[in-house]
Amino acid sequence: MKKFRLFTPGPTMVPDDTLLEMARPIEHHRTPEYRAMAKECHELLQYLFQTNASCLTFTGSGTSAAEAAIVGCCPPGHKALIYRYGKFSERWAEVCVAYNIDHKTVDLDWGTGPRADTVRKEMDADPKIDTVILVHSETSTAALADIPNIAKVTREKDALLLVDGITAVGTLPVKMDEWGVDVYITGSQKALMLPPGLGFAAVNDRAWKRVDSGKMPGLYLDLKAYRKSLENFDVPYTPANTLIRGLLVNLRKIKEIGLEQIWRESAVMAKAMRAAAAAINVKVYPKDPVDSVTALVVPDGVDEGKLRKTIKAKHGFHIAGGQGEVKGKIVRFSHMGYVDVFDTLGAISAFEMTLAELGHKFELGAGVAAAQKVFAEAMK
Amino acid sequence: MKKFRLFTPGPTMVPDDTLLEMARPIEHHRTPEYRAMAKECHELLQYLFQTNASCLTFTGSGTSAAEAAIVGCCPPGHKALIYRYGKFSERWAEVCVAYNIDHKTVDLDWGTGPRADTVRKEMDADPKIDTVILVHSETSTAALADIPNIAKVTREKDALLLVDGITAVGTLPVKMDEWGVDVYITGSQKALMLPPGLGFAAVNDRAWKRVDSGKMPGLYLDLKAYRKSLENFDVPYTPANTLIRGLLVNLRKIKEIGLEQIWRESAVMAKAMRAAAAAINVKVYPKDPVDSVTALVVPDGVDEGKLRKTIKAKHGFHIAGGQGEVKGKIVRFSHMGYVDVFDTLGAISAFEMTLAELGHKFELGAGVAAAQKVFAEAMK
Repeated sequence: MKKFRLFTPGPTMVPDDTLLEMARPIEHHRTPEYRAMAKECHELLQYLFQTNASCLTFTGSGTSAAEAAIVGCCPPGHKALIYRYGKFSERWAEVCVAYNIDHKTVDLDWGTGPRADTVRKEMDADPKIDTVILVHSETSTAALADIPNIAKVTREKDALLLVDGITAVGTLPVKMDEWGVDVYITGSQKALMLPPGLGFAAVNDRAWKRVDSGKMPGLYLDLKAYRKSLENFDVPYTPANTLIRGLLVNLRKIKEIGLEQIWRESAVMAKAMRAAAAAINVKVYPKDPVDSVTALVVPDGVDEGKLRKTIKAKHGFHIAGGQGEVKGKIVRFSHMGYVDVFDTLGAISAFEMTLAELGHKFELGAGVAAAQKVFAEAMK
Repeated sequence: MKKFRLFTPGPTMVPDDTLLEMARPIEHHRTPEYRAMAKECHELLQYLFQTNASCLTFTGSGTSAAEAAIVGCCPPGHKALIYRYGKFSERWAEVCVAYNIDHKTVDLDWGTGPRADTVRKEMDADPKIDTVILVHSETSTAALADIPNIAKVTREKDALLLVDGITAVGTLPVKMDEWGVDVYITGSQKALMLPPGLGFAAVNDRAWKRVDSGKMPGLYLDLKAYRKSLENFDVPYTPANTLIRGLLVNLRKIKEIGLEQIWRESAVMAKAMRAAAAAINVKVYPKDPVDSVTALVVPDGVDEGKLRKTIKAKHGFHIAGGQGEVKGKIVRFSHMGYVDVFDTLGAISAFEMTLAELGHKFELGAGVAAAQKVFAEAMK
């Protein structure tokens, strides 16, 4: 008997009952039943984002929602500040280029995340900047941005703060309204435990004021069309309604468990994995590690491709490699969504056995033991 | 025992085995297995569109694919001709407005479709027109455009022809290369027998030449990004991979049955439904009826809302009403995808029984009998 376990930082594992819910015979979306489902999803999305803002659902990847938000919030006359510290933050700079949006990019070392003091410095230096676009959890490097403190700066400066929370929302503490974030983005295939195919943007009144002040091209990604339809819990374009059905099931699960409990569990899994790494002579890659994804440096002498191939073929764990400048140098494990303590212990065990096979020197079992101590402490 | 049958012109019924295929545990998309699946899908999409052109797959509704195609093919310096004869053709004019694309709109009576002679007249009158955007099957009115003859005109004039084939491809004869259509669009939730969530654009070399000649805003709907990824059967953004899995299963089914057989069957079901309508004193709405959807005029004295509510609640058939200017005046039945002779006979029977209950005068059973004669003749 061999089981397959998906440990990539998206897509993540989908619960069996959610898969079966989505496999029920298809129904039409222009119905009272669909609107009732969309209404409940909207209430639960507000809980997920911890906001009273309107939560828009796009049929598309997380990129579609992020592009819609950036374009809508950056009409001519505004200037965005973008930090690049991984593949996804780079992508939002590309959106600005594609739409000719005035912006300043600041490059950070990969593995680090932007902080409040550097944001303040940039904004002091260029008073034209009135929009800050950040990635909360840089999936490609597993680095964290200090969103709560950055939000204090953007509020003080009366700027908009747009946050890509694709691997943050539903895993890391996210308190949109309390912190003062104006737009938060996420996608279906991470903490929401769904297949890819839905993107979400929570847009508050400050952001809507900006959206309404200008006109940008686009129909399918036009925020205003989604806001208008949301009045009746409808959609402007045909929705991926089997995914919406799964969304409702999973959001109910999340509400039932409670966000604070989920945030605690992810943090403990990440802490356990970092402890395991330290115990087996493996370095954590990011300087500012996030709790939704752990990126570990592939030890000297170990081939990254062989490592991922072996751990998948032999032990059934699909983990991610690096992208861009860290390709071949790191491997990444997810702590998002439908994953628990014992899945994580299993991943650590498989990682240890694979590293040992590939010649890395360490005490076999030390990683699992270190992780278990973290779990035991947390479960007291 | 009561069964539910979805007869709306999208979404349409999804085969049980396809639903279960999509319910298998989720896997990652940056893998050789995914690329092999995407490669086979591409070959089968070329068969579906009857083309050697590149067939791009978008995670989004059909609108996303159509918007991507229109925007990509209409950079500054070009002028589009758009006929409006229903809700979807109106939407493509809105795309032109949203992106400030130079265009001329010609309004036709709803229920009719554009013809080669009128297209020629418009193009003669305005030599700046070098792009024609049409809907093959106007889902909202069930009217047909004469694509093969219009394509002769656009080729003669060296213009590009973009066709929304969302309710045409896989149901009506579509021969992209033979006819000389430059871009054909479709969506997942019609003849492809899938849930909504995927859009497709087949783009030929003439269209690529245009796309490469200019620069339009957009990242998520940028045709060039999809073409580049397609070189390795990859995708630029995270795909709705459960739907892709279902796509492969359904495209294989279509290939196995054969397009010509499917085209014949749809035509027979549409013919049977029109014969049934004539036999029960119900008028076919469009002047130029299409074989993928039948739109019937709700008889005088019958309330459209009550009709659709009753046929669904009492008999389990979900049919569509009208949109825009024909709201409340017509009902629509699909002949696309996973629907057969006996489903169609059932729909006619349920329609008859509902009309009788609501006071329409006709000979009960005449519709079913007329339809059966058509089927019997076709199956000889």
